[in-house]
Amino acid sequence: MSHSIYNQLLMISIQDQNVGSIFPVLLFFHGFLVENAWYTQLLEHVSSHVYIIVAPQEVNQAAFISEWLIKGGLSSEPKMPKNVQADLTKVAVSGHSRGGKTAFALALGCQEAEAPPASSLKFSAVLGIDPVAGSSPSNRTDPKILKYIPRSFDLSTMPIAVIGTGLGNQKKGITPPLAPNGVNHAEFWNESKPPCYYFLAKEYGHCDMFNEDGPPWFVIHKICQTGSGPRDLMRRSLGGIVVAFLEAYLGGNKQNLQGIVDESLEAPIAIHPIISLDDATC
Amino acid sequence: MSHSIYNQLLMISIQDQNVGSIFPVLLFFHGFLVENAWYTQLLEHVSSHVYIIVAPQEVNQAAFISEWLIKGGLSSEPKMPKNVQADLTKVAVSGHSRGGKTAFALALGCQEAEAPPASSLKFSAVLGIDPVAGSSPSNRTDPKILKYIPRSFDLSTMPIAVIGTGLGNQKKGITPPLAPNGVNHAEFWNESKPPCYYFLAKEYGHCDMFNEDGPPWFVIHKICQTGSGPRDLMRRSLGGIVVAFLEAYLGGNKQNLQGIVDESLEAPIAIHPIISLDDATC
Repeated sequence: MSHSIYNQLLMISIQDQNVGSIFPVLLFFHGFLVENAWYTQLLEHVSSHVYIIVAPQEVNQAAFISEWLIKGGLSSEPKMPKNVQADLTKVAVSGHSRGGKTAFALALGCQEAEAPPASSLKFSAVLGIDPVAGSSPSNRTDPKILKYIPRSFDLSTMPIAVIGTGLGNQKKGITPPLAPNGVNHAEFWNESKPPCYYFLAKEYGHCDMFNEDGPPWFVIHKICQTGSGPRDLMRRSLGGIVVAFLEAYLGGNKQNLQGIVDESLEAPIAIHPIISLDDATC
Repeated sequence: MSHSIYNQLLMISIQDQNVGSIFPVLLFFHGFLVENAWYTQLLEHVSSHVYIIVAPQEVNQAAFISEWLIKGGLSSEPKMPKNVQADLTKVAVSGHSRGGKTAFALALGCQEAEAPPASSLKFSAVLGIDPVAGSSPSNRTDPKILKYIPRSFDLSTMPIAVIGTGLGNQKKGITPPLAPNGVNHAEFWNESKPPCYYFLAKEYGHCDMFNEDGPPWFVIHKICQTGSGPRDLMRRSLGGIVVAFLEAYLGGNKQNLQGIVDESLEAPIAIHPIISLDDATC
């Protein structure tokens, strides 16, 4: 089921046998000028693996959302199913496009000017889906988190996944690229410390993970380089990667993530390169 | 001794006991608008470890220099000491600034328009000192070798070293940065495949490896952010890293390179971060 609470999208897939359990949480921030509702098909995939998903519409208030979570916002939310609890010791933060950058900024503790004092909510993992930090290295959005020094994200051993799109750095018509070189997935990956994972959906574009019925596609096609393959395969592939990453670092089971990395589990679209840096060896 | 041949700087440090031996070669390309003669103090350091150094003045003719080498140019050069031979099975290619990019382009086989057909000279290693690929990701010099995809340099298992400067991405006065974010050492490193090594001289600038008596320093100080520490320590540190890398991959002795990586051998200036990616584990 999905509910809109305080401009947030709350997604919880509860099966009868799970009622009474405690579930990990995925916080997801949408991209610039887009709606959280455009991601429900992707997020339902993740939610169905029994994660509580909180996807606020207002990404500029990321720190307030984090504060709301730690203060028990979910448990006091009337639309939360009874006997369902959020496990606030297992919260991953994620996002797409500028929301991917917001996720990193929140994990790094780089707050907006009017944010509350750093909250005590600790994240267990961070995940950027085609994250974007501005329009060029010299024109980045605040807070500026990229330093252009490899492995500079000061996240200790927090696990990181970066998923890029191969067409995101291409322009469409007169529109500049939506995920330009120098501020996109490649640099986010470069600044990540192990343990970290990189996946490139090489034949898809920056908007190809939206719902079929989400955005006005006739507009998207004019401003965004899109892939020629079926979008449901893109969403399934991204969903699978997200779930495998969460399973590994929130659930303690690395089997599927390892399968994706060593390519024994094949995605339905071309994911290349896939790179993993383990903390023990790199 | 150092000689200028065909606009080239040839540096050979021969001790009596070495005459009659065969020596590995380091090809070095200078930066944009600067002279190869400004690097002699740095290059003498490397040369003293018994490498033949060829540092042409004309970097736009990199492929022709490579062709000249393979056709025995060095052995027919009248100023080469008698009984000294170049080992063309052990040639590393390197450079500073735009010359660093030239080194990568030559190793990658990305030729200038008027270059001879790809030569049969195979490089054993490539080394970029604060390499620069243009003024921004959207304004790169030809040939465009950066793809903004991690590990995209198609160099098989050729070992790579990238040395960056921490101040190279800062502007000085009204002059833009000489090694701008998005086209500098960080992205060259990001596109390198293992085995590869990254070193950042974090408190020095893009020009701090020039000779003391080389460039007009009063001009350099106006256009280039320079470090406050002694430049001879910068040259010694860079020279030491270059020699350790060549020893490892041209000489087969990884001891000093490993010492630098695990910081048991300490450089006289701050080198941080130091990152190594081994082909076996990463």
